[in-house]
Amino acid sequence: MRLYSMPSSGNSYKVRLLLSLLGRDVPTVDVEYQTDALDSAKAEGRLPFGKAPVLELDDGRLLPESNAILFWLGEGTAFVPADPFQRTQMLSWLFWEQNQHEGTIAVRAALLSYPHRRAQATPDRLAALLEAGHANLQIMEDRLSRRDWLVGDAPSLADICLYAYTHSAGDRGGFDMARFPAIAAWLDRIAALPGHRALTA
Amino acid sequence: MRLYSMPSSGNSYKVRLLLSLLGRDVPTVDVEYQTDALDSAKAEGRLPFGKAPVLELDDGRLLPESNAILFWLGEGTAFVPADPFQRTQMLSWLFWEQNQHEGTIAVRAALLSYPHRRAQATPDRLAALLEAGHANLQIMEDRLSRRDWLVGDAPSLADICLYAYTHSAGDRGGFDMARFPAIAAWLDRIAALPGHRALTA
Repeated sequence: MRLYSMPSSGNSYKVRLLLSLLGRDVPTVDVEYQTDALDSAKAEGRLPFGKAPVLELDDGRLLPESNAILFWLGEGTAFVPADPFQRTQMLSWLFWEQNQHEGTIAVRAALLSYPHRRAQATPDRLAALLEAGHANLQIMEDRLSRRDWLVGDAPSLADICLYAYTHSAGDRGGFDMARFPAIAAWLDRIAALPGHRALTA
Repeated sequence: MRLYSMPSSGNSYKVRLLLSLLGRDVPTVDVEYQTDALDSAKAEGRLPFGKAPVLELDDGRLLPESNAILFWLGEGTAFVPADPFQRTQMLSWLFWEQNQHEGTIAVRAALLSYPHRRAQATPDRLAALLEAGHANLQIMEDRLSRRDWLVGDAPSLADICLYAYTHSAGDRGGFDMARFPAIAAWLDRIAALPGHRALTA
Protein backbone atom coordinates (compact mmCIF):
# COMPACT_ATOMS: atom_id res chain seq x y z
CA MET A 1 0.00 0.00 0.00
CA ARG A 2 1.17 3.53 -0.69
CA LEU A 3 -0.30 6.98 -0.49
CA TYR A 4 -0.04 9.64 -3.17
CA SER A 5 -0.05 12.71 -0.98
CA MET A 6 0.19 16.46 -1.62
CA PRO A 7 2.30 17.83 1.26
CA SER A 8 0.64 21.28 1.35
CA SER A 9 -2.94 20.01 1.07
CA GLY A 10 -5.38 19.52 3.93
CA ASN A 11 -7.10 16.72 2.03
CA SER A 12 -3.86 14.74 1.96
CA TYR A 13 -3.06 15.77 5.54
CA LYS A 14 -6.28 14.15 6.80
CA VAL A 15 -5.04 10.78 5.63
CA ARG A 16 -1.53 11.27 7.00
CA LEU A 17 -3.05 12.34 10.35
CA LEU A 18 -5.30 9.26 10.56
CA LEU A 19 -2.41 6.94 9.70
CA SER A 20 -0.33 8.59 12.42
CA LEU A 21 -3.14 8.32 14.99
CA LEU A 22 -3.46 4.63 14.07
CA GLY A 23 0.29 4.14 14.41
CA ARG A 24 0.53 2.95 10.82
CA ASP A 25 3.49 3.66 8.60
CA VAL A 26 2.49 3.75 4.94
CA PRO A 27 4.97 4.83 2.25
CA THR A 28 3.98 8.09 0.62
CA VAL A 29 4.71 9.52 -2.80
CA ASP A 30 4.76 13.31 -2.56
CA VAL A 31 2.91 14.96 -5.43
CA GLU A 32 3.02 18.70 -4.75
CA TYR A 33 1.28 21.26 -6.99
CA GLN A 34 3.20 22.09 -10.14
CA THR A 35 5.85 19.41 -9.75
CA ASP A 36 7.02 16.70 -12.13
CA ALA A 37 5.98 14.11 -9.55
CA LEU A 38 2.35 15.23 -9.82
CA ASP A 39 2.50 15.27 -13.62
CA SER A 40 4.01 11.76 -13.63
CA ALA A 41 1.39 10.36 -11.27
CA LYS A 42 -1.35 11.77 -13.50
CA ALA A 43 0.31 10.55 -16.69
CA GLU A 44 0.68 7.05 -15.22
CA GLY A 45 -3.01 6.94 -14.36
CA ARG A 46 -2.46 6.86 -10.61
CA LEU A 47 -4.92 9.71 -9.84
CA PRO A 48 -8.34 8.54 -11.11
CA PHE A 49 -10.01 11.91 -10.51
CA GLY A 50 -6.88 13.91 -11.31
CA LYS A 51 -6.22 14.87 -7.70
CA ALA A 52 -4.39 13.72 -4.56
CA PRO A 53 -4.68 11.97 -2.21
CA VAL A 54 -5.02 8.52 -3.71
CA LEU A 55 -4.40 5.27 -1.87
CA GLU A 56 -2.83 2.52 -3.97
CA LEU A 57 -3.40 -0.99 -2.60
CA ASP A 58 -0.79 -3.70 -2.87
CA ASP A 59 -2.63 -5.26 -5.81
CA GLY A 60 -2.61 -1.94 -7.68
CA ARG A 61 -6.22 -0.94 -7.07
CA LEU A 62 -6.58 2.81 -6.63
CA LEU A 63 -8.84 4.62 -4.19
CA PRO A 64 -9.30 8.38 -4.71
CA GLU A 65 -11.01 10.97 -2.48
CA SER A 66 -9.62 11.80 0.94
CA ASN A 67 -12.78 10.98 2.88
CA ALA A 68 -13.27 7.64 1.16
CA ILE A 69 -9.65 6.79 2.04
CA LEU A 70 -10.37 7.76 5.67
CA PHE A 71 -13.35 5.39 5.63
CA TRP A 72 -11.30 2.55 4.11
CA LEU A 73 -8.49 2.94 6.65
CA GLY A 74 -10.80 3.73 9.58
CA GLU A 75 -13.30 0.85 9.31
CA GLY A 76 -12.87 -1.47 12.27
CA THR A 77 -10.95 1.09 14.34
CA ALA A 78 -12.13 3.33 17.18
CA PHE A 79 -12.48 6.22 14.72
CA VAL A 80 -15.58 4.73 13.08
CA PRO A 81 -18.54 4.35 15.46
CA ALA A 82 -20.08 0.89 15.60
CA ASP A 83 -23.58 2.32 15.95
CA PRO A 84 -25.17 2.51 12.47
CA PHE A 85 -26.77 5.92 13.03
CA GLN A 86 -23.58 7.44 14.41
CA ARG A 87 -21.64 6.00 11.46
CA THR A 88 -24.06 7.74 9.13
CA GLN A 89 -23.92 11.00 11.12
CA MET A 90 -20.17 10.78 10.70
CA LEU A 91 -20.69 10.49 6.95
CA SER A 92 -22.97 13.56 7.06
CA TRP A 93 -20.07 15.61 8.44
CA LEU A 94 -17.71 14.13 5.85
CA PHE A 95 -20.03 15.06 2.98
CA TRP A 96 -20.68 18.50 4.47
CA GLU A 97 -16.94 19.01 4.72
CA GLN A 98 -16.44 18.33 1.01
CA ASN A 99 -19.43 20.35 -0.13
CA GLN A 100 -19.52 23.35 2.23
CA HIS A 101 -16.46 23.57 4.47
CA GLU A 102 -13.78 22.71 1.91
CA GLY A 103 -15.46 24.86 -0.73
CA THR A 104 -15.18 27.96 1.44
CA ILE A 105 -12.46 27.54 4.07
CA ALA A 106 -9.95 25.52 2.07
CA VAL A 107 -10.64 27.45 -1.12
CA ARG A 108 -10.03 30.85 0.55
CA ALA A 109 -6.77 29.53 2.04
CA ALA A 110 -5.73 28.20 -1.37
CA LEU A 111 -6.48 31.49 -3.10
CA LEU A 112 -4.31 33.30 -0.54
CA SER A 113 -1.52 30.67 -0.36
CA TYR A 114 -0.87 29.32 -3.85
CA PRO A 115 0.72 31.80 -6.31
CA HIS A 116 -1.00 30.15 -9.29
CA ARG A 117 -4.43 30.78 -7.70
CA ARG A 118 -3.87 34.47 -6.96
CA ALA A 119 -5.52 35.66 -10.17
CA GLN A 120 -8.83 34.20 -8.88
CA ALA A 121 -8.52 35.98 -5.53
CA THR A 122 -10.68 38.97 -6.37
CA PRO A 123 -11.88 41.13 -3.46
CA ASP A 124 -15.51 40.15 -4.10
CA ARG A 125 -14.68 36.44 -4.09
CA LEU A 126 -12.54 36.69 -0.94
CA ALA A 127 -15.32 38.60 0.85
CA ALA A 128 -17.97 36.07 -0.17
CA LEU A 129 -15.77 33.16 0.96
CA LEU A 130 -15.07 34.90 4.27
CA GLU A 131 -18.76 35.30 5.02
CA ALA A 132 -19.69 31.77 3.93
CA GLY A 133 -16.71 30.29 5.77
CA HIS A 134 -17.64 32.04 9.00
CA ALA A 135 -21.20 30.70 8.65
CA ASN A 136 -19.81 27.17 8.26
CA LEU A 137 -17.50 27.59 11.25
CA GLN A 138 -20.54 28.74 13.25
CA ILE A 139 -22.25 25.41 12.50
CA MET A 140 -19.23 23.62 13.98
CA GLU A 141 -19.10 26.05 16.92
CA ASP A 142 -22.77 25.42 17.73
CA ARG A 143 -22.17 21.69 17.73
CA LEU A 144 -18.92 21.80 19.71
CA SER A 145 -20.26 24.18 22.34
CA ARG A 146 -22.53 21.31 23.40
CA ARG A 147 -20.24 18.32 22.89
CA ASP A 148 -16.55 17.46 22.88
CA TRP A 149 -16.63 15.64 19.54
CA LEU A 150 -18.67 16.07 16.37
CA VAL A 151 -20.29 12.61 16.61
CA GLY A 152 -20.95 10.61 19.76
CA ASP A 153 -18.60 10.74 22.73
CA ALA A 154 -15.26 9.98 21.10
CA PRO A 155 -13.12 11.27 18.25
CA SER A 156 -14.20 9.90 14.89
CA LEU A 157 -13.29 10.38 11.25
CA ALA A 158 -15.55 13.45 11.33
CA ASP A 159 -13.16 15.20 13.74
CA ILE A 160 -10.05 14.14 11.81
CA CYS A 161 -11.59 15.25 8.53
CA LEU A 162 -12.75 18.66 9.76
CA TYR A 163 -9.54 19.29 11.68
CA ALA A 164 -7.46 19.36 8.50
CA TYR A 165 -8.66 22.67 7.07
CA THR A 166 -10.08 24.14 10.30
CA HIS A 167 -6.80 24.14 12.22
CA SER A 168 -5.23 26.40 9.60
CA ALA A 169 -8.31 28.48 8.80
CA GLY A 170 -7.00 31.49 10.73
CA ASP A 171 -3.40 31.50 9.55
CA ARG A 172 -3.91 30.42 5.96
CA GLY A 173 -7.49 31.44 5.29
CA GLY A 174 -7.73 34.69 7.23
CA PHE A 175 -10.82 33.60 9.18
CA ASP A 176 -11.50 35.24 12.55
CA MET A 177 -11.07 32.22 14.81
CA ALA A 178 -11.43 34.31 17.99
CA ARG A 179 -15.18 34.11 17.39
CA PHE A 180 -15.14 30.34 17.86
CA PRO A 181 -13.90 29.33 21.33
CA ALA A 182 -15.50 25.89 21.25
CA ILE A 183 -13.67 25.15 18.00
CA ALA A 184 -10.41 26.30 19.61
CA ALA A 185 -10.89 23.91 22.52
CA TRP A 186 -11.74 21.07 20.11
CA LEU A 187 -8.62 21.78 18.01
CA ASP A 188 -6.59 21.48 21.24
CA ARG A 189 -8.27 18.17 22.09
CA ILE A 190 -7.34 16.76 18.68
CA ALA A 191 -3.78 18.07 18.88
CA ALA A 192 -3.47 16.23 22.23
CA LEU A 193 -4.49 12.83 20.82
CA PRO A 194 -1.69 10.25 21.00
CA GLY A 195 0.02 10.03 17.64
CA HIS A 196 -1.11 13.46 16.41
CA ARG A 197 1.15 14.92 13.76
CA ALA A 198 1.27 18.40 12.28
CA LEU A 199 0.54 19.31 8.66
CA THR A 200 4.21 19.91 7.99
CA ALA A 201 5.56 17.06 10.14
CA MET B 1 -39.79 8.71 9.17
CA ARG B 2 -40.17 11.71 6.94
CA LEU B 3 -38.10 13.53 4.38
CA TYR B 4 -37.61 17.28 4.19
CA SER B 5 -37.22 17.66 0.45
CA MET B 6 -36.67 20.61 -1.91
CA PRO B 7 -38.73 19.78 -5.02
CA SER B 8 -36.46 21.62 -7.47
CA SER B 9 -33.16 20.33 -6.05
CA GLY B 10 -31.13 17.44 -7.40
CA ASN B 11 -29.81 16.70 -3.92
CA SER B 12 -33.35 16.07 -2.69
CA TYR B 13 -34.25 14.26 -5.92
CA LYS B 14 -31.51 11.67 -5.28
CA VAL B 15 -33.27 10.58 -2.13
CA ARG B 16 -36.73 10.55 -3.72
CA LEU B 17 -35.31 8.49 -6.60
CA LEU B 18 -33.73 5.91 -4.28
CA LEU B 19 -36.92 5.59 -2.25
CA SER B 20 -38.88 5.05 -5.46
CA LEU B 21 -36.39 2.45 -6.74
CA LEU B 22 -36.72 0.68 -3.38
CA GLY B 23 -40.52 0.83 -3.56
CA ARG B 24 -40.65 2.75 -0.30
CA ASP B 25 -43.22 5.41 0.41
CA VAL B 26 -41.92 7.97 2.88
CA PRO B 27 -43.91 11.12 3.68
CA THR B 28 -42.18 14.25 2.44
CA VAL B 29 -42.32 17.84 3.63
CA ASP B 30 -41.68 20.13 0.66
CA VAL B 31 -39.30 22.96 1.52
CA GLU B 32 -38.75 24.90 -1.70
CA TYR B 33 -36.37 27.89 -1.92
CA GLN B 34 -37.81 31.11 -0.60
CA THR B 35 -40.95 29.59 0.88
CA ASP B 36 -42.41 29.81 4.37
CA ALA B 37 -42.12 26.04 4.65
CA LEU B 38 -38.32 26.27 4.32
CA ASP B 39 -38.14 29.12 6.81
CA SER B 40 -40.28 27.16 9.28
CA ALA B 41 -38.20 23.99 8.96
CA LYS B 42 -35.05 26.03 9.64
CA ALA B 43 -36.63 27.91 12.55
CA GLU B 44 -37.80 24.63 14.10
CA GLY B 45 -34.26 23.22 13.93
CA ARG B 46 -35.12 20.51 11.42
CA LEU B 47 -32.26 21.32 9.03
CA PRO B 48 -29.03 20.85 11.03
CA PHE B 49 -26.80 22.27 8.29
CA GLY B 50 -29.42 24.76 7.09
CA LYS B 51 -30.19 22.84 3.90
CA ALA B 52 -32.46 20.13 2.50
CA PRO B 53 -32.71 17.21 2.21
CA VAL B 54 -32.91 16.02 5.81
CA LEU B 55 -34.31 12.66 6.91
CA GLU B 56 -36.18 12.73 10.21
CA LEU B 57 -36.41 9.34 11.92
CA ASP B 58 -39.47 8.28 13.89
CA ASP B 59 -37.69 9.09 17.16
CA GLY B 60 -36.93 12.62 15.96
CA ARG B 61 -33.25 12.12 15.14
CA LEU B 62 -32.22 14.15 12.10
CA LEU B 63 -29.88 13.09 9.32
CA PRO B 64 -28.66 15.83 6.94
CA GLU B 65 -26.70 15.55 3.68
CA SER B 66 -28.19 13.82 0.65
CA ASN B 67 -25.42 11.26 0.21
CA ALA B 68 -25.44 10.28 3.89
CA ILE B 69 -29.21 9.75 3.61
CA LEU B 70 -28.63 7.58 0.53
CA PHE B 71 -26.17 5.50 2.56
CA TRP B 72 -28.59 5.17 5.48
CA LEU B 73 -31.47 4.08 3.26
CA GLY B 74 -29.31 2.01 0.92
CA GLU B 75 -27.40 -0.14 3.41
CA GLY B 76 -28.52 -3.75 3.12
CA THR B 77 -30.07 -3.24 -0.33
CA ALA B 78 -28.75 -4.13 -3.77
CA PHE B 79 -27.64 -0.50 -4.23
CA VAL B 80 -24.74 -0.85 -1.76
CA PRO B 81 -22.13 -3.42 -2.84
CA ALA B 82 -21.30 -6.08 -0.25
CA ASP B 83 -17.62 -6.06 -1.23
CA PRO B 84 -15.74 -3.67 1.09
CA PHE B 85 -13.56 -2.19 -1.65
CA GLN B 86 -16.51 -1.60 -3.96
CA ARG B 87 -18.44 0.02 -1.08
CA THR B 88 -15.54 2.40 -0.61
CA GLN B 89 -15.21 3.06 -4.35
CA MET B 90 -18.90 3.95 -4.24
CA LEU B 91 -18.12 6.44 -1.46
CA SER B 92 -15.31 7.91 -3.60
CA TRP B 93 -17.87 8.77 -6.28
CA LEU B 94 -20.26 10.18 -3.65
CA PHE B 95 -17.56 12.46 -2.21
CA TRP B 96 -16.39 13.46 -5.70
CA GLU B 97 -19.97 14.32 -6.57
CA GLN B 98 -20.28 16.70 -3.62
CA ASN B 99 -16.87 18.28 -4.09
CA GLN B 100 -16.41 18.48 -7.86
CA HIS B 101 -19.55 17.54 -9.79
CA GLU B 102 -22.12 19.39 -7.69
CA GLY B 103 -19.84 22.40 -7.34
CA THR B 104 -19.70 22.87 -11.11
CA ILE B 105 -22.65 21.18 -12.79
CA ALA B 106 -25.34 21.82 -10.19
CA VAL B 107 -24.02 25.30 -9.41
CA ARG B 108 -24.12 26.38 -13.06
CA ALA B 109 -27.68 25.06 -13.38
CA ALA B 110 -28.67 26.89 -10.20
CA LEU B 111 -27.15 30.17 -11.41
CA LEU B 112 -29.16 29.88 -14.62
CA SER B 113 -32.39 28.57 -13.05
CA TYR B 114 -33.00 30.39 -9.77
CA PRO B 115 -33.85 34.11 -10.09
CA HIS B 116 -32.24 34.92 -6.72
CA ARG B 117 -28.90 33.49 -7.95
CA ARG B 118 -28.81 35.43 -11.24
CA ALA B 119 -26.69 38.26 -9.83
CA GLN B 120 -23.85 35.75 -9.33
CA ALA B 121 -24.12 34.48 -12.90
CA THR B 122 -21.35 36.64 -14.36
CA PRO B 123 -20.01 35.66 -17.81
CA ASP B 124 -16.59 34.80 -16.34
CA ARG B 125 -18.11 32.54 -13.70
CA LEU B 126 -20.42 30.80 -16.16
CA ALA B 127 -17.50 30.20 -18.53
CA ALA B 128 -15.29 28.78 -15.77
CA LEU B 129 -18.10 26.50 -14.56
CA LEU B 130 -18.74 25.32 -18.13
CA GLU B 131 -15.12 24.33 -18.61
CA ALA B 132 -14.79 22.65 -15.21
CA GLY B 133 -18.14 20.90 -15.60
CA HIS B 134 -17.18 19.48 -18.98
CA ALA B 135 -13.92 18.19 -17.45
CA ASN B 136 -15.92 16.45 -14.72
CA LEU B 137 -18.36 14.97 -17.22
CA GLN B 138 -15.33 13.66 -19.16
CA ILE B 139 -14.23 11.72 -16.04
CA MET B 140 -17.65 10.05 -15.98
CA GLU B 141 -17.56 9.47 -19.76
CA ASP B 142 -14.16 7.77 -19.52
CA ARG B 143 -15.46 5.46 -16.82
CA LEU B 144 -18.78 4.70 -18.51
CA SER B 145 -17.25 4.05 -21.90
CA ARG B 146 -15.65 0.97 -20.31
CA ARG B 147 -18.44 -0.19 -17.97
CA ASP B 148 -22.20 0.00 -17.64
CA TRP B 149 -22.19 1.27 -14.04
CA LEU B 150 -19.84 3.48 -12.06
CA VAL B 151 -18.93 0.77 -9.54
CA GLY B 152 -18.94 -2.99 -10.10
CA ASP B 153 -21.46 -4.64 -12.40
CA ALA B 154 -24.74 -3.30 -11.03
CA PRO B 155 -26.35 0.05 -10.27
CA SER B 156 -25.26 1.44 -6.90
CA LEU B 157 -25.75 4.61 -4.89
CA ALA B 158 -22.95 6.10 -7.02
CA ASP B 159 -25.16 5.92 -10.11
CA ILE B 160 -28.25 7.24 -8.32
CA CYS B 161 -26.25 10.09 -6.80
CA LEU B 162 -24.56 11.17 -10.03
CA TYR B 163 -27.75 10.79 -12.06
CA ALA B 164 -29.50 13.56 -10.17
CA TYR B 165 -27.58 16.53 -11.54
CA THR B 166 -26.18 14.83 -14.67
CA HIS B 167 -29.55 14.05 -16.22
CA SER B 168 -30.44 17.75 -16.27
CA ALA B 169 -26.95 19.11 -17.01
CA GLY B 170 -27.82 19.90 -20.63
CA ASP B 171 -31.25 21.44 -20.17
CA ARG B 172 -30.64 23.29 -16.91
CA GLY B 173 -26.88 23.78 -16.90
CA GLY B 174 -26.20 24.38 -20.59
CA PHE B 175 -23.56 21.66 -20.83
CA ASP B 176 -22.87 20.11 -24.24
CA MET B 177 -24.05 16.57 -23.56
CA ALA B 178 -23.59 15.50 -27.20
CA ARG B 179 -19.90 15.12 -26.34
CA PHE B 180 -20.69 12.32 -23.89
CA PRO B 181 -22.40 9.34 -25.57
CA ALA B 182 -21.49 6.86 -22.83
CA ILE B 183 -23.14 9.13 -20.26
CA ALA B 184 -26.24 9.32 -22.48
CA ALA B 185 -26.48 5.52 -22.62
CA TRP B 186 -25.98 5.30 -18.84
CA LEU B 187 -28.72 7.90 -18.23
CA ASP B 188 -31.04 5.71 -20.35
CA ARG B 189 -30.11 2.62 -18.32
CA ILE B 190 -31.00 4.40 -15.08
CA ALA B 191 -34.24 5.78 -16.48
CA ALA B 192 -35.18 2.19 -17.40
CA LEU B 193 -34.71 0.82 -13.87
CA PRO B 194 -37.96 -0.47 -12.32
CA GLY B 195 -39.39 2.22 -10.05
CA HIS B 196 -37.51 5.13 -11.65
CA ARG B 197 -39.22 8.47 -11.15
CA ALA B 198 -38.55 11.83 -12.73
CA LEU B 199 -37.36 14.95 -10.90
CA THR B 200 -40.78 16.53 -11.21
CA ALA B 201 -42.83 13.36 -10.66
